[in-house]
Amino acid sequence: MKVEGKSYRSIWYDDKTEAVKIIDQRWLPHEFRIAILDTLQDFAIAITEMWVRGAPLIGATAAFGVAMEMRRDASDAALDRCRETLIETRPTAINLRWALDRCLDTLRSQPMEERAARSLELALLISDEDVEINRRIGVNGLDIIKKIAATKKEGEPVNILTHCNAGWIATVDWGTATSPMYQAHDLGIPIHVWVDETRPRNQGALTSWELGSHGISHQYIVDNAGGYLMQKGHVDLVIVGTDRTSAGGDVCNKIGTYLKALAARDNSIPFYVALPSPTIDWTITDGLAEIPIEERNENEVTHIMGKDSAGDLTQVLVSPVGTNGGNPAFDVTPRHLVTGLITEQGICEASPSGLAELFPEKARENSK
Amino acid sequence: MKVEGKSYRSIWYDDKTEAVKIIDQRWLPHEFRIAILDTLQDFAIAITEMWVRGAPLIGATAAFGVAMEMRRDASDAALDRCRETLIETRPTAINLRWALDRCLDTLRSQPMEERAARSLELALLISDEDVEINRRIGVNGLDIIKKIAATKKEGEPVNILTHCNAGWIATVDWGTATSPMYQAHDLGIPIHVWVDETRPRNQGALTSWELGSHGISHQYIVDNAGGYLMQKGHVDLVIVGTDRTSAGGDVCNKIGTYLKALAARDNSIPFYVALPSPTIDWTITDGLAEIPIEERNENEVTHIMGKDSAGDLTQVLVSPVGTNGGNPAFDVTPRHLVTGLITEQGICEASPSGLAELFPEKARENSK
Repeated sequence: MKVEGKSYRSIWYDDKTEAVKIIDQRWLPHEFRIAILDTLQDFAIAITEMWVRGAPLIGATAAFGVAMEMRRDASDAALDRCRETLIETRPTAINLRWALDRCLDTLRSQPMEERAARSLELALLISDEDVEINRRIGVNGLDIIKKIAATKKEGEPVNILTHCNAGWIATVDWGTATSPMYQAHDLGIPIHVWVDETRPRNQGALTSWELGSHGISHQYIVDNAGGYLMQKGHVDLVIVGTDRTSAGGDVCNKIGTYLKALAARDNSIPFYVALPSPTIDWTITDGLAEIPIEERNENEVTHIMGKDSAGDLTQVLVSPVGTNGGNPAFDVTPRHLVTGLITEQGICEASPSGLAELFPEKARENSK
Repeated sequence: MKVEGKSYRSIWYDDKTEAVKIIDQRWLPHEFRIAILDTLQDFAIAITEMWVRGAPLIGATAAFGVAMEMRRDASDAALDRCRETLIETRPTAINLRWALDRCLDTLRSQPMEERAARSLELALLISDEDVEINRRIGVNGLDIIKKIAATKKEGEPVNILTHCNAGWIATVDWGTATSPMYQAHDLGIPIHVWVDETRPRNQGALTSWELGSHGISHQYIVDNAGGYLMQKGHVDLVIVGTDRTSAGGDVCNKIGTYLKALAARDNSIPFYVALPSPTIDWTITDGLAEIPIEERNENEVTHIMGKDSAGDLTQVLVSPVGTNGGNPAFDVTPRHLVTGLITEQGICEASPSGLAELFPEKARENSK
């Protein structure tokens, strides 16, 4: 999408300099910086320390990481090294494993001298596929927004609440949860987005930055506010993304998603999850019991980064000195709280049968 | 309770200097500062700008404000001025209205020359009554903790989640939600407290400061984390405070309380609300429909105050420049999500009949 009038993806290969470039998201929403990733270690750091974030973008980043390593060393040992270095960078992200397996399995069967070229093609292909998947998620989700818009008075917006950043900078382009919003806005359907701050890392600020750049009406709210807004009828629809969805339809997403799903259910508000099918983990049925939850550094909870009055990025301590934090990064929303899953293939019920109907091959493959 | 080994209340009259002193809570948890309040305007600012916060403390502060004004001018016009200046400082706080009405009604029937002395006696009485009420809430709530402790293995703590700061610095002493915790800890019953950060104003940092000063085991978590912790069995009990409870048992408390109540219900975890009876609004039955919700400045959402690496208190902008915020300060938890109300008179069901049984006179008075 656009930044200061120019179209960007969140990761791309610069043909001129033969380098992989990313939007270094550590500085957003305050500063727009581009970084070059070169060594395998660069890629691992970029994923672990969240220069890039969002399941689809993490997958694409891993693929480019393999490509850059193959240029240096295309041996089988290098393939093993890629896997070892990258696989544990974010334990919850299913796309990471999926993209790595896809690259490494393909490359292993190739002659060494072709691996450098082939791995770059693969990374570019994975990027392009992600863009197309997200565009189609948007087209499918658009139907839901259109139906609600039809019930509104002329000019009255459809009010959508979202959590975290499942936006274009969490993917290669379009975003997942935001894709229907961009599509609706571009068609002239008035929408207003309630953007959850999403502590501890405040990814809502990224969503606000994205939506603002695109001219979409929105308000930034604390994570505590959504229940109240739903009680008061200020929310028509919730759309969130996901890092991993079980074959049963349980949704693992940024911590706090479950609370919004409970509130949506209590107020009879549709709660949709937008997801590219590679984030479905067909090996897992019960998301609550089986998806491991990443426990991140407690400093993320006790400290916050922002722009001070001098315009400098500053980290401040918000809790008393020496306080212990707790920092589970994700939670699992059980399927019964999810109205539907918006995928690139269509919308389905969040259930084993709903998913199996939309992805019969995958379901068959994994029921063996 | 104690700060650096010395016992404090959150507001007190210093006999030596004949001045009203408060803990200026804007600097907590980072700095412990004491402020003197003198003019009526001082008191109004201290309440509006949250130098003092918490329903019971706001009530006591208003009473001291009247006392200081009566010393200057004990006319009927001054009584009117007190009401006008103080009544709108925090629209949601029922104690404010209650304390003001109590002072002003009493003083109006007194001769002018006695109003200065009488108003100070009244403010001191309201303070002492608050301390005793909170102590009794603690004794009553202790029973709930004891019962859960009895089901635990030797040394295993009772895990309690709390939201906002319903601690001793939100009252004159003891706190409401924290009072049972202090009582349990002092009896040697092991407890561990999950402290919700409570955005946007991070009052959880105050609760952490309090609990830490008293030596109670606790962890500071983002507001998003509580649902996950409940799903995983890490929470035995929720105790929160309230700013206003309807005669029907609906509970108005800091924004986000409703989301925790939903999660507690979904995970069969008891959800208790600790409240002094003056926070019951007997004129209102349906809290959801009838309690007005304060919408505060959006800067509270877009900016956060903390301690920078140099140790200075700094405010940082967390959202993109120019982003609009939304900032409802409270929400209402409907009675059916509340396991029970812990009052100074005992514990009751959150229902019209539960409250009427515990406070028969009040209920009769208001059903007329």
